[in-house]
Amino acid sequence: MQVIETLDHMRAARSALRRPIGFVPTMGYLHDGHVSLIHRAHAECASVVVSIFVNPTQFLPGEDYERYPRDTPRDLALCEKAAVSVVFAPTPAEVYPPDFASYVEVTGLQDRWEGAIRPGHFRGVATVVAKLFRIVQAERAYFGEKDYQQLQIVRRMALDLCLDTDVISCPTIREPDGLAMSSRNVYLSADDRQRAVALFRALSAAQSQLLGGETSGSSLSSTMKDLLVKAGLDVDYAAVVHPSSLEPLERIGREARALLAARLGPVRLIDNAPLRPATWSETQK
Amino acid sequence: MQVIETLDHMRAARSALRRPIGFVPTMGYLHDGHVSLIHRAHAECASVVVSIFVNPTQFLPGEDYERYPRDTPRDLALCEKAAVSVVFAPTPAEVYPPDFASYVEVTGLQDRWEGAIRPGHFRGVATVVAKLFRIVQAERAYFGEKDYQQLQIVRRMALDLCLDTDVISCPTIREPDGLAMSSRNVYLSADDRQRAVALFRALSAAQSQLLGGETSGSSLSSTMKDLLVKAGLDVDYAAVVHPSSLEPLERIGREARALLAARLGPVRLIDNAPLRPATWSETQK
Repeated sequence: MQVIETLDHMRAARSALRRPIGFVPTMGYLHDGHVSLIHRAHAECASVVVSIFVNPTQFLPGEDYERYPRDTPRDLALCEKAAVSVVFAPTPAEVYPPDFASYVEVTGLQDRWEGAIRPGHFRGVATVVAKLFRIVQAERAYFGEKDYQQLQIVRRMALDLCLDTDVISCPTIREPDGLAMSSRNVYLSADDRQRAVALFRALSAAQSQLLGGETSGSSLSSTMKDLLVKAGLDVDYAAVVHPSSLEPLERIGREARALLAARLGPVRLIDNAPLRPATWSETQK
Repeated sequence: MQVIETLDHMRAARSALRRPIGFVPTMGYLHDGHVSLIHRAHAECASVVVSIFVNPTQFLPGEDYERYPRDTPRDLALCEKAAVSVVFAPTPAEVYPPDFASYVEVTGLQDRWEGAIRPGHFRGVATVVAKLFRIVQAERAYFGEKDYQQLQIVRRMALDLCLDTDVISCPTIREPDGLAMSSRNVYLSADDRQRAVALFRALSAAQSQLLGGETSGSSLSSTMKDLLVKAGLDVDYAAVVHPSSLEPLERIGREARALLAARLGPVRLIDNAPLRPATWSETQK
């Protein structure tokens, strides 16, 4: 396994890799969710590149950029074990040299939900992913559905700007009690860790209510919000939206997505799930 | 010569072209300035691709997008004569499909001078150039210095986002009396065409004054502005700036750039030139 820290070395390394290349961009502090992306990349590609880069431009002032959890030795061991070909771990100065000035915006999508609460966040995400896509030049890149809005934004951008990397979405990996895996879960106190399962329960309740015949977006949204509030979470949003435009849906016809964001003390968690009516089938998709 | 109208055909065509590819992006209505870019591309590359695309996103509401001069048959004849390999002439719907939402911004540079007067213009330019670079995948792209701020923005963007196309700047081509060639010159009335030479005279006067020992940016700027006003032009700006950051320069040390924008009735013209002190030499650059 090669560990590469500069753009020039990554450019040189990519031409020696067997194709297709599968790319898994991460901010490090890897968990089973990341590992599942690496496995999926292995199943579909001849080489796997993992990037580890805590991207400063997607953190807002006052957010947790400085204290975002980092453990590079452990990450490298995990990658080695998962037979990763190249770990690309550039410094911020390598990605953002002093005169850096160019940013990618995905209008509309970037301003909703997480974007409304974290203005500028998705500009940072879209910019770094565009740049990483160009540096790695993989055929495919693997993203978890956990960050669902990010996934839609990256997919839109890759298509719009002809970045020539297919964006592959992969199911969220969960703890046994249903909590979505996230590097930020380490921030949770023991009590809050217990309460955090309310997110998954709210998503399940909405799906169950939909199967029971309730197709009103606002009713399902209220169900989720009530459950979160009862469990002691401060809700930022509990929305039922169109799966690609992310616009709120008044009535669920074919498929929708439930999006949640809530705070537990100092920790902010997001989660999401598909909402599929009884008549839904994979072939309709 | 192939004439290609879709992204998919362009992708297929590019892999059959001999490399390196030289790319000349244009909005059509080609003049000798464009032809000089094609010749330069031929001198340095094995194949030449010219794009002809009047890019709607770089025109502001109320600007001349609809009436921008177009003459595709003449453009194609010129390209054929100049031994162009491929003319890529996509429709707006091909470049901007209905769900298109991604834009490239070059902060700082995009807000000065032309950007201050035409807000959003450079976002449109940066976006379409980024996309064209990815579709054509040329080793080099050729831009005239006539649109000097555009050139700096495109160069910055190509570096920042690792677009892998080198941006080559080429001298402005001028009419015998010094007027910079531009597709928009056809808008000028006979009288205004006479007056328009004031732009070149102002640039020359500033260079001459600098050689005479005047190194104050604001003095040179006033000289240019006065000349333009006397010739009957409405001046948008007459600036002396740093050649890459485009920030106003109070004192010219090594090299500066003079930037002009002025209106003649309904027609807006821009021009620019290097300002080089007597001590300047090419090797210092």
